[in-house]
Amino acid sequence: MSELAARAEKLDGLDELALKRDEFVLDDVVYLDGNSLGALPAAVPGRVADVVRRQWGELRIRSWTEGGWWTAPERIGDRIAPLVGAAAGQVVVGDSTSVNVFKAVVGAVRLARLADPARDEIVVDATTFPTDGYIAESAARMTGCTLRPVTPSEVPGALGDRTAAVLLNHVDYRTGRLHDLPSLTAAVHAAGAYVVWDLCHSAGALPVGLDRHGVDLAVGCTYKYLNGGPGSPAFLYVRADLQDRFDSPLPGWNSHAEPFGMRPGYEPAAGAVRGRVGTPDILSMLALEAALEVWDGVAVDAVRAKSLALTDFFLECVEEYVPEGRVACVTPRAHAERGSQIALRCPDAGAVMERLIERGVVGDFRHPDVLRFGFTPLYVGFADVERAARVLAEVLV
Amino acid sequence: MSELAARAEKLDGLDELALKRDEFVLDDVVYLDGNSLGALPAAVPGRVADVVRRQWGELRIRSWTEGGWWTAPERIGDRIAPLVGAAAGQVVVGDSTSVNVFKAVVGAVRLARLADPARDEIVVDATTFPTDGYIAESAARMTGCTLRPVTPSEVPGALGDRTAAVLLNHVDYRTGRLHDLPSLTAAVHAAGAYVVWDLCHSAGALPVGLDRHGVDLAVGCTYKYLNGGPGSPAFLYVRADLQDRFDSPLPGWNSHAEPFGMRPGYEPAAGAVRGRVGTPDILSMLALEAALEVWDGVAVDAVRAKSLALTDFFLECVEEYVPEGRVACVTPRAHAERGSQIALRCPDAGAVMERLIERGVVGDFRHPDVLRFGFTPLYVGFADVERAARVLAEVLV
Repeated sequence: MSELAARAEKLDGLDELALKRDEFVLDDVVYLDGNSLGALPAAVPGRVADVVRRQWGELRIRSWTEGGWWTAPERIGDRIAPLVGAAAGQVVVGDSTSVNVFKAVVGAVRLARLADPARDEIVVDATTFPTDGYIAESAARMTGCTLRPVTPSEVPGALGDRTAAVLLNHVDYRTGRLHDLPSLTAAVHAAGAYVVWDLCHSAGALPVGLDRHGVDLAVGCTYKYLNGGPGSPAFLYVRADLQDRFDSPLPGWNSHAEPFGMRPGYEPAAGAVRGRVGTPDILSMLALEAALEVWDGVAVDAVRAKSLALTDFFLECVEEYVPEGRVACVTPRAHAERGSQIALRCPDAGAVMERLIERGVVGDFRHPDVLRFGFTPLYVGFADVERAARVLAEVLV
Repeated sequence: MSELAARAEKLDGLDELALKRDEFVLDDVVYLDGNSLGALPAAVPGRVADVVRRQWGELRIRSWTEGGWWTAPERIGDRIAPLVGAAAGQVVVGDSTSVNVFKAVVGAVRLARLADPARDEIVVDATTFPTDGYIAESAARMTGCTLRPVTPSEVPGALGDRTAAVLLNHVDYRTGRLHDLPSLTAAVHAAGAYVVWDLCHSAGALPVGLDRHGVDLAVGCTYKYLNGGPGSPAFLYVRADLQDRFDSPLPGWNSHAEPFGMRPGYEPAAGAVRGRVGTPDILSMLALEAALEVWDGVAVDAVRAKSLALTDFFLECVEEYVPEGRVACVTPRAHAERGSQIALRCPDAGAVMERLIERGVVGDFRHPDVLRFGFTPLYVGFADVERAARVLAEVLV
C-alpha cells in the first residue's frame, strides 16, 4: 500500500461523517459529480413510493390538506434554512433556480427603489453560471435597468448610487472559487443597494451564514450538495425584515394571503410564503424532503472541515501521482477561497473525463478544458480521493 | 333497480372507453374531483420507482443524456400536442401554470409590439382563475401596459388598436362554462392582437384545436384531466410560425441555442425549446410521461362525446332525485357552452360537500356556494354518475 493510500485509510477511520455514506445508495464508483447531481439518499425511494401509491393513489385530493402537501414549500424551506444559516420562516422551496433568480433580482431592484427610485443599474458577476446572467438581463430589461457585468473582484469598484441590485455567486461553478460573501454583502449595503446570492454550489457544502452576514435575498438549487434529485425544486431566501416589502414579479395564487378565497385582487401573503407562485410540484418536493433527512445531526461546520480535508488531500495526491505540468489547478489553494470542488485544466479534458468515467471515477467536463471534481463530504471518503487521483494519473499517461 | 340505475348499467355496457378505468388505481369511491387532481394511472408507480432507483440511483448523472432526461420537456410536449390539436414541435412541458402564463402573456405583448409598438393594453377575463389575473397584472406592470379585466362576453367589444394581448380561459374553473375559442381567437386577431388561452380545464377533456383555430399561445396544467400527479409541470404552446419571434421574459439556460456552451450571451433556441427556463423537474416530469400512456389509442372526440353524455346524465339524475329548488345548476345546458364539469349552487355547499365525501362521493367546494363535480371520461362511468346524484339527494334532505 502506498503512503497516500495508508493515509487515506487512517483518515477514513477518523472521519466522524464516514457512517453517513450508508444513508446513500452507492456502488463502487468514486462519485465526484455530486456538485452536478447528488447521489440518491436511501430514504427517498420508499418515501416517493408512499407519496405516489398512498398519498396520490388512495387519499388523492385529501392529501393537499391532510397529507401536508399544501404547506410543503415553507416546511421544507425551514428544513433547508439552518443549512444556510437562516432562522425559520425565511426560506421557501419551489420553481427552478432560474425562476427564483428572476424573483430575487426583480425583488431586489424594487426594494432599492423604495428608498431611491433613480437607481437603475444591476451589477452581475460576469463569470457567473450563464442562466444567472441571462435572467439578470431580462430582469434589467423589464425594470428599466442597465445590466453591468463585472468580475467579482471588480464588484466593489463598480458599486455606486445608481446600483439597485447585485447578483453574485457564492462559489464559481467552473473554478470552484469561493467568493467573500460577508465583505461583498457589506460593500453592496454601503452603496445602498441590495444583494442576491446564488448558493447553488455552496448550500450543503459549507457554512453560508445568511442571517449573520445580513444577506438580503438568496437562491439555490437542491439537487447538488442537498441531494434532492434531478431537477428538484430550488429555494428562495428573503430576509425576515424585508419580507413585507418584497414585491414579487410572479405573484401567483400560492402567494396570496388567502389563496382559496379566489379573490380577483392580489394581496400578498406575509412571510416566506410570499415567494411562492403556482401549485407546488409535490413528487419532487417530497423526494427532496426525504433527502434532507440525511442532515439530521450533521453540523455544517463538520461538513466544511471534511470538505477542505478532502480537497487538500486530493490536491496532494494529484501532485504526487500526476506528472508535473500535465494538469493545472484552477481552484484557489487558500481555504478561504475554495468551495467543495477542484477544477483542473488540461487541454484534452473532454477525452480524459471519458476515460476516467470508464475507469469508475465520475467527475464532469466543462467546456473547453476543465476537469471538475465535486467532493460531497456526506458520502465521499479519503480512499475515494486517493483512488480518483491515482486513476487520473493512469489515464493521463 | 330504478329506471336511471338500469339506464346507467346499459350505458356502461355500451361505453367504448369503459375498459380505460382499469388503467387507473381506483377504489369504490365515486371520484368526481379529477378536474382538481386526476386519479393515479396504474403505470406511474413502477415508472417512478425506476426513475428513482435505477435512473437516479444507479446511472446518476448519465441519465441526463443516456436516460433522455434532457429532452423530456419537448418529448412530453409532443405527447400532449395531439390532445390539444397541435402538431409536433409546439408544446413544451415545465414550470407551473402561473409561470407559463407569465411567459405567454409577456411573449404575446412583445409579439404585438413588433408590428405596433404603441399597443399598451392587456385584456383579461375578469372571471378567470385568480392566478391568471394576478400574473397578467404583473405582466402588464412589467411591460408598461394597462390591464383591462372584462367578462368574456365583453371581450369582443373591448378589443381595439391599443390591445396587445388577451388572456382567456377555455373553460371557467367555477361554472364549467366553455368559451368559444374559435370566434374569440378570430376577434382578437381581427384587432391585431395576440391571444393566450388557458387550457387548464379543457386539455384532456375536450377537443381544443389549437392549430386549426390559429391560436397564438396557450398554457395548461397536466394534473387535472391529464392525470400527471400533484403539481405536475404545466405546458406552454407557441404556434410554430411565431416561435422565432417569441421573446421569453424567462430566458434560462435551458432555452439557449447551445445550453452546454456556457456562453455569457443569450441566444435563444429554435422551436418549442425556447419556452424552457431552468433544469426540468425530472421526477414529476417522467411521472407525467407515464401517466400520458393512458391516452394511447384514445380519440379526444370520443372523450368529449362521453363527457357530454356523463354530464347530461348527471343533470337528468339530479333533476329526478333532488327536490326542485334545492340546487341550481350554474353550468350551461348547451353542449357548446359546457366543459366537463357540473357546478351546482346551493347555500350550504361547504357542509353538503363534506357529507358527500363522507358517503364516498368526492367533488369539491368552491367558495362561497358552489358544489363542483368533474367528470373524467377515462375513469368515470354512468353508474358512478347515478350514484353521485342519488347520494347528493340523500345528503341534501
